[in-house]
Amino acid sequence: MRAVVFDETCRLITDYRVPEVPAGWALIRVTQAGICGTDLELTGGYRNFSGVIGHEFVGTVAQCDDPNWAGRRVVGEINVACGQCTRCQRGLMRHCANRKVLGIDGLAGCMADYCILPTANLHRVPETISDDRAVFTEPLSAACEILDQLSVTGSEQAVVLGDGRLGILCAWVLSTAIRDVTLVGRHRNKLKQADWNHVHTVSNAENIPREADVVVEATGSVSGLRDAVSLVRPRGTVVLKTTLAAPLEIDMAPVVVNEITVLGSRCGRFSQGLRMLEAYPD
Amino acid sequence: MRAVVFDETCRLITDYRVPEVPAGWALIRVTQAGICGTDLELTGGYRNFSGVIGHEFVGTVAQCDDPNWAGRRVVGEINVACGQCTRCQRGLMRHCANRKVLGIDGLAGCMADYCILPTANLHRVPETISDDRAVFTEPLSAACEILDQLSVTGSEQAVVLGDGRLGILCAWVLSTAIRDVTLVGRHRNKLKQADWNHVHTVSNAENIPREADVVVEATGSVSGLRDAVSLVRPRGTVVLKTTLAAPLEIDMAPVVVNEITVLGSRCGRFSQGLRMLEAYPD
Repeated sequence: MRAVVFDETCRLITDYRVPEVPAGWALIRVTQAGICGTDLELTGGYRNFSGVIGHEFVGTVAQCDDPNWAGRRVVGEINVACGQCTRCQRGLMRHCANRKVLGIDGLAGCMADYCILPTANLHRVPETISDDRAVFTEPLSAACEILDQLSVTGSEQAVVLGDGRLGILCAWVLSTAIRDVTLVGRHRNKLKQADWNHVHTVSNAENIPREADVVVEATGSVSGLRDAVSLVRPRGTVVLKTTLAAPLEIDMAPVVVNEITVLGSRCGRFSQGLRMLEAYPD
Repeated sequence: MRAVVFDETCRLITDYRVPEVPAGWALIRVTQAGICGTDLELTGGYRNFSGVIGHEFVGTVAQCDDPNWAGRRVVGEINVACGQCTRCQRGLMRHCANRKVLGIDGLAGCMADYCILPTANLHRVPETISDDRAVFTEPLSAACEILDQLSVTGSEQAVVLGDGRLGILCAWVLSTAIRDVTLVGRHRNKLKQADWNHVHTVSNAENIPREADVVVEATGSVSGLRDAVSLVRPRGTVVLKTTLAAPLEIDMAPVVVNEITVLGSRCGRFSQGLRMLEAYPD
């Protein structure tokens, strides 16, 4: 099969072996795959990754010992938990200590004709959701994770830093629960794309709301956390959505003095992403 | 009056002017004052401070236009709010944008025969609490702030890093609400002092519990945050109690990947500290 393989460089290999399918797993024929900032970090050396990259896809089950899944159009949760460790037994499956992660850690990714996942990770894609939209389930669910972690009343003021895809998705998700959402970016075309629901977009630093209740850092830049901490109100929350491969230098005194909550936020439940895709059709 | 004044160096001045008492304020004759890590940071250059240092005290009201306060034994909240700004109007008085802070910012401190505070900041010290204990109200209330910010069920596992005074007080406060509390330090004598309630003490890195639900960083060292992040379980909470004067270098990726909450925590309500001093007599 064809596969995009990273091993010091990124190459398209046309005769890569089709993965074997363990019991309880499914072989998925990938229809579309997405490219994520994490993929770019991985090809930049993050986690010493090598193998087939990619963890965002929509596809069709090509082979599976469970007939209920055969031929289904699916998306798939990317963390494969062991089910045995303390974390799994605490319900923290996405944080399983022995987890494999599709295209990120110990499991060949989906930028290939086929990938494999346990059927427990699969979600059927409702017919009303096109492939073009379904392929966004993974990053959209990651954006939805913010509302899973943070209880909001709707009257908050929220600012999202970064007009990349994740930033835009975070702003959109927040706008479904919070009235006052501002997306801050530097790219006129991206900010134009972000114009949905009642999301404000801002490119000029002077127009960024100060003392926001929630600031989401989705720039992936070393200055992002510092900027977020300077924008949030005392006792407010900074949500960290992007991982950086390199350590950063930061003065944590304002976090203590202003009693700020810095909340790391990663993958989300696909049920949430799919629900949003259904609730807001094209 | 006598006063400990910092201005590049720390000096005892014996003829320092007694502060004037504005309307609504009280002149307090200081009986005892405490020394805090922040004082040491200030004399190391933090915030470019100069003036009378000290923000922990117990004393007696020597002069006040409100007769209800005259002669009372008191402790005092250290943040003097303007009452006018957006933060004050949101109820964030301790984070007032124009605040003065006793012995820290814009207000002469309490390492002197006399200091002044608004009567709104004062708390009467119950007779059952000796001066030796009352002088700890400020740092004890700061430790109590953790339980104000963090809702706990009691079944959590908590680890406190740092056997300085604030670390010990944090461990004690946590032990009033959580069964499993471990204090980690390097000083045998301090760990011995920390032996109260059911606090475990640990000096050997190998014996530190892993995957704790809550880790409090109270070492005041540049490696403290990194250590805390490595010890807490996924989706757990790191409480930052100490301010560092210098920026630190940290890899924030584990915070995102493990969805850790980093919670800045500073001053607490004196009512909480006094309540604990009453609830647990000598």
